[in-house]
Amino acid sequence: MNMLVDGEWRTDAYQTTNDDGEFDRQETSFRDEIVSDADAEFPAESGRYHVYISRACPWAHRVAMTRRLCGLEDDISLSVVEPERYEDGWEFSTDYPDPLYDAEYLRDIYTRADPEFTGRVTVPVLWDEQTETIVNNESREIMRMLNTAFEGSNDVELWPEGYREEVDRVIDEIYDPINNGVYRAGFADTQEAYNAAVEEVFDALDHWEDVLDDQRFLAGDKLTEADLAMFVTLIRFDHVYHTHFKCNRRAIHEYPNLWNYTKELYQLPGIKSTVNIDHIMRHYYVSHDDVNPKRLVPTGPDIDFSTPHNRDRLPADLPDTLQSETTAAVADD
Amino acid sequence: MNMLVDGEWRTDAYQTTNDDGEFDRQETSFRDEIVSDADAEFPAESGRYHVYISRACPWAHRVAMTRRLCGLEDDISLSVVEPERYEDGWEFSTDYPDPLYDAEYLRDIYTRADPEFTGRVTVPVLWDEQTETIVNNESREIMRMLNTAFEGSNDVELWPEGYREEVDRVIDEIYDPINNGVYRAGFADTQEAYNAAVEEVFDALDHWEDVLDDQRFLAGDKLTEADLAMFVTLIRFDHVYHTHFKCNRRAIHEYPNLWNYTKELYQLPGIKSTVNIDHIMRHYYVSHDDVNPKRLVPTGPDIDFSTPHNRDRLPADLPDTLQSETTAAVADD
Repeated sequence: MNMLVDGEWRTDAYQTTNDDGEFDRQETSFRDEIVSDADAEFPAESGRYHVYISRACPWAHRVAMTRRLCGLEDDISLSVVEPERYEDGWEFSTDYPDPLYDAEYLRDIYTRADPEFTGRVTVPVLWDEQTETIVNNESREIMRMLNTAFEGSNDVELWPEGYREEVDRVIDEIYDPINNGVYRAGFADTQEAYNAAVEEVFDALDHWEDVLDDQRFLAGDKLTEADLAMFVTLIRFDHVYHTHFKCNRRAIHEYPNLWNYTKELYQLPGIKSTVNIDHIMRHYYVSHDDVNPKRLVPTGPDIDFSTPHNRDRLPADLPDTLQSETTAAVADD
Repeated sequence: MNMLVDGEWRTDAYQTTNDDGEFDRQETSFRDEIVSDADAEFPAESGRYHVYISRACPWAHRVAMTRRLCGLEDDISLSVVEPERYEDGWEFSTDYPDPLYDAEYLRDIYTRADPEFTGRVTVPVLWDEQTETIVNNESREIMRMLNTAFEGSNDVELWPEGYREEVDRVIDEIYDPINNGVYRAGFADTQEAYNAAVEEVFDALDHWEDVLDDQRFLAGDKLTEADLAMFVTLIRFDHVYHTHFKCNRRAIHEYPNLWNYTKELYQLPGIKSTVNIDHIMRHYYVSHDDVNPKRLVPTGPDIDFSTPHNRDRLPADLPDTLQSETTAAVADD
């Protein structure tokens, strides 16, 4: 567990394994909700909330993408922690300061919300500046509440009516074999646990490769939360999961549909600015010394998410703000 | 150094680094020569010599390939050590016994040759059964003497007249950036040493990718020792060096010419039987616990050396025993 042990914060909770050597992800702790109701405990108010993220973390990345796609930059502030994580967990620095309290570590934010807190210190953190507490630290729920409780300046609806059941089904379906599957492969302590996890990863990728042959996005012709949930894993796959987590049966850029799909999402307006490959690489390769003890960060792979994709061949129902930006988006921010 | 220290044989010589964190390969120790002269100390006599190899080791692989291509199976016996190497170095087992002395470890063969020996215990070992000593343990020299001192049953000349200078030049040229370059990347102790090594690896691969666009083999239209020296690295690249040694800028199967070239060599009569991907994978991933502490062996990549190649588009001057076997060779042994 990532907890205060003998006066030290331990970060090995990120790699907790059970008796069979299988990675067990611990549950997140804060599960309140922002709603579009002025009388609620946490009402959707512009300028009241802050999100702490790491550019390295796929879970946090979902939140950064939602904020950007929905046009919530002026409503919800965002700050980034240092990509490299050592014994004291996620930390702030001169380059990546805490804009609210000038805290040293992210754990200080957790203990500010709950002085007794000893659980996992993870990103994303959705922080309420008014009551000075953590509203929620579960990425899937934050993604949903940003998307539904706030208006936003963009005409983008990531949980659209008529698609909601399918979006939820897909997010459920990809979580275990893909989003968490790469971690189960990389943090496995036994060959059996690794083999089982990596087989699930590629069985699932093979399945979605097929689906994306006939369908523009995971839940159909609309971009939804399900795509964000998938994208954050795909964009890290070839740089990190393939080598560091040994998910090397195939690279995403070797799957025609998954690769073009990844590039289309990367090239949507605003998304590129949420992707920081340098932070992603440094985080994983440096932070897991029981997987990569020399902490060397690879120089590969030599791939380019900005090259043209072929997804236009499939029908899409995209809002104006996301349409016809494929080419221009490459130069985005 | 791999030596007897406090009564234990240490194998970390394989990963000796200098003050700059760069991998320094130690020199081999036995450098005598078999010649086709009955009066020589080590004359080329059928049935007199034995080679100890590991199927995992690229240097040993050169010798196994030479023996096979030159048709020396009946002249020189060969045995294989256990692929996994632990604290006591290369070892024999029930599955992979020492056929000559029933030794427990390969170091016992070294001390049989020289009771005072404390240097690196490496494969290949070219052993003289008559004088009970190691003739040579330097792969490049063994490859050359098998090829030149013995007749062999095959009409194959791997150091052909008119090509000799070029063969030697190419073997020299590829050693540091490619054959040893992958080790310098994988065993680097600093980011700087890793970055420099991996850049040399890929600069060299890019160069040979270009050369092989116009030329069937490394030294021209004939298969030579230079190709064997290159092949043993290429055949291990995607399974091991790409992931384990972080040479992941690109895979060999993503280089059209290098990939097809690798497949052509793999499919030459006899070569497939010298390639043991299981031994290769188990050796590297299990034996280097300072690179891969959990010793997990990946299940990837999903590539097939037996698929058709396109090298027939370039002229080749191959002996009969190596010609027109491309298709049949896939079923070889």
